[in-house]
Amino acid sequence: TEKLVFEELKLRVRELENELIKCKQKIDKMSAEVVDSNPYSRLMALKRMGIVEDYEKIRTFTVAVVGVGGVGSVTAEMLTRCGIGKLILFDYDKVELANMNRLFFQPHQAGLSKVEAAEHTLRTINPDVQFETHNYNITTMDNFAHFMDRISHGALQDGKAVDLVLSCVDNFEARMAINTACNELSQIWMESGVSENAVSGHIQLIIPGETACFACAPPLVVAANIDEKTLKREGVCAASLPTTMGVVAGILVQNVLKYLLKFGTVSHYLGYNAMQDFFPTMAMKANPTCDDRHCRKQQDVYKKKEAERPKKVVEQAVEEEVVHEENDWGIELVSEQTDQELQAASGPVPDLPEGITVAYTIPDKTGTSEGETVEETEQSLEELMAQMRTM
Amino acid sequence: TEKLVFEELKLRVRELENELIKCKQKIDKMSAEVVDSNPYSRLMALKRMGIVEDYEKIRTFTVAVVGVGGVGSVTAEMLTRCGIGKLILFDYDKVELANMNRLFFQPHQAGLSKVEAAEHTLRTINPDVQFETHNYNITTMDNFAHFMDRISHGALQDGKAVDLVLSCVDNFEARMAINTACNELSQIWMESGVSENAVSGHIQLIIPGETACFACAPPLVVAANIDEKTLKREGVCAASLPTTMGVVAGILVQNVLKYLLKFGTVSHYLGYNAMQDFFPTMAMKANPTCDDRHCRKQQDVYKKKEAERPKKVVEQAVEEEVVHEENDWGIELVSEQTDQELQAASGPVPDLPEGITVAYTIPDKTGTSEGETVEETEQSLEELMAQMRTM
Repeated sequence: TEKLVFEELKLRVRELENELIKCKQKIDKMSAEVVDSNPYSRLMALKRMGIVEDYEKIRTFTVAVVGVGGVGSVTAEMLTRCGIGKLILFDYDKVELANMNRLFFQPHQAGLSKVEAAEHTLRTINPDVQFETHNYNITTMDNFAHFMDRISHGALQDGKAVDLVLSCVDNFEARMAINTACNELSQIWMESGVSENAVSGHIQLIIPGETACFACAPPLVVAANIDEKTLKREGVCAASLPTTMGVVAGILVQNVLKYLLKFGTVSHYLGYNAMQDFFPTMAMKANPTCDDRHCRKQQDVYKKKEAERPKKVVEQAVEEEVVHEENDWGIELVSEQTDQELQAASGPVPDLPEGITVAYTIPDKTGTSEGETVEETEQSLEELMAQMRTM
Repeated sequence: TEKLVFEELKLRVRELENELIKCKQKIDKMSAEVVDSNPYSRLMALKRMGIVEDYEKIRTFTVAVVGVGGVGSVTAEMLTRCGIGKLILFDYDKVELANMNRLFFQPHQAGLSKVEAAEHTLRTINPDVQFETHNYNITTMDNFAHFMDRISHGALQDGKAVDLVLSCVDNFEARMAINTACNELSQIWMESGVSENAVSGHIQLIIPGETACFACAPPLVVAANIDEKTLKREGVCAASLPTTMGVVAGILVQNVLKYLLKFGTVSHYLGYNAMQDFFPTMAMKANPTCDDRHCRKQQDVYKKKEAERPKKVVEQAVEEEVVHEENDWGIELVSEQTDQELQAASGPVPDLPEGITVAYTIPDKTGTSEGETVEETEQSLEELMAQMRTM
């Protein structure tokens, strides 16, 4: 009976909390006043410190977070605490006790949908943020159309596209769906990922037509230096750690803040190898022979735009040295590491900075077994796809 | 009245939650079973993946966390979710709305002591963890004695010392107090810090007698490449970001897990420059002329122990190249970067890897104005100490 009373009370408190949130006055203007009761004082201090020129601008931005798991939930919490204007959350999963080894969700939320549980917690944390949640799988036909519609029309300013899409999903199909949508809509997005063995991760900025999209090149991952054979066995669940996921969410949202609020250097690719505390960076241009026709179309648009820019500016833009004009995938790498560091790089894949490797191989379009595979592999495309499904 | 009903219900729910936690059966044994209801399945998977040999051992460890703010609270949550045996939390502060721009605390906890609020949340998250909290300032005489007693006798195994002390404090005095205690007790600890402008941070492993203690060398910080004059003005509150603090907590607890569970490479120093996404690493030996007599004593103990080790092992141990035998502070640096990288390093301080600088200068013991200052400065020791107080 105690348990029953508890459940009833929990429900009533939840109702009252929701009512309270509704009647709570949203603040009109972020204050920089240094008082204990001001939730924005430490953020507005970024202006006084000379880091951010216009912090209040954060309230005008809308960010879509796809996947509200170990990385996505912490990503949403960080953005909420930073006072983002609006968050649109997508996930079709339920909270389970098996998720308790990562930050954010609590045992009493087990059974709730992740978006519902997340929205409740986030509203309690910051009632100034607007939320929109979608409890569905974006990869099915109908949902994908709806997803496209929401990212192109879901911004605070009615009818506009969101400012950024963040991929915090854990599988290949969902990443490809986001990639397809963003290429078609010319929507800038950031991708994130954590390896199955829980000790490496990465973030990547994708500007359609300009930087490599998810279909331009095999997705890059940080090598974990462990025996691949111990990974990806049938029926084996992936490992995860709150530390690795917290770091990946942290570097992801930091990149979001730098991009939206225009400070520091926005990273194109930042990897995290927890075993060695190694954080490789790099940049990768779009692949002219990319399979995604919308990517190729965006590349044409980008080239035209670049050609139309005043000559002097173009000259500055091409100053970055393209280290490898041509390779097996038609990818151009603009390395942020020195030539010496690149020469010292080892591993099965040439032309990638040390410590970075590919998560899977691009299937050979000609039908022969030679050509574009990255590592010697006897696995079929189906097997590789099955592997990616668990990523 | 709605507000009153709400407050009453909140209190009752809290009481019931606490009762439920008490009657909840602690699990006897961490299970690796892959079911949604198992909170440890994703952690135990680290064994199957070949990352950690004996994950269950985590339940035998006790960690003290000093400072339960932006970094300390997330640190405690990560360790709780990983299933650590026991946490001892120290903080004398109260939760304020001004803390809401960082992870962990929620608005309804404003006014509660940080340790009380943290314990409540953490117990709800994982009832298997034991907690001990101390709501006091460790730097006062009486409290310091009690602090020393708890870290030397607070472990799960009655009367033993804790396995690790984590410094997550935001000021110089508290760091010095932890340093003094750990040197005297020969207690291994890790230090963490975030800069006042919120865009850089670091973690450091301190093994008394072996690696540089907090008094051996000026505390090292990652240069943020911003005008120092905009910082540290009177009455100006420090900036903070949930991203930077989340990353620092993440790399700190990752280092704790690697140290306790013996996997990967434990970092001696890892910096984080958020503006450039730059993560410098290095190692620093203890300073034979350190001001702390207990540090010097521990150095003698360490040297004796090293001398007594079988010759072959000693040879391996000294293989690490000492890159700078002697410098202004008597610090020996064992760089994890190449000579070329070191030569390319710039900035006011020689002999430090690129991007790392000192947080303050060591006062000149001889009374002359020359000698051991790092940068040209006209500031008095008092001014420097006042600056450190706000760190």
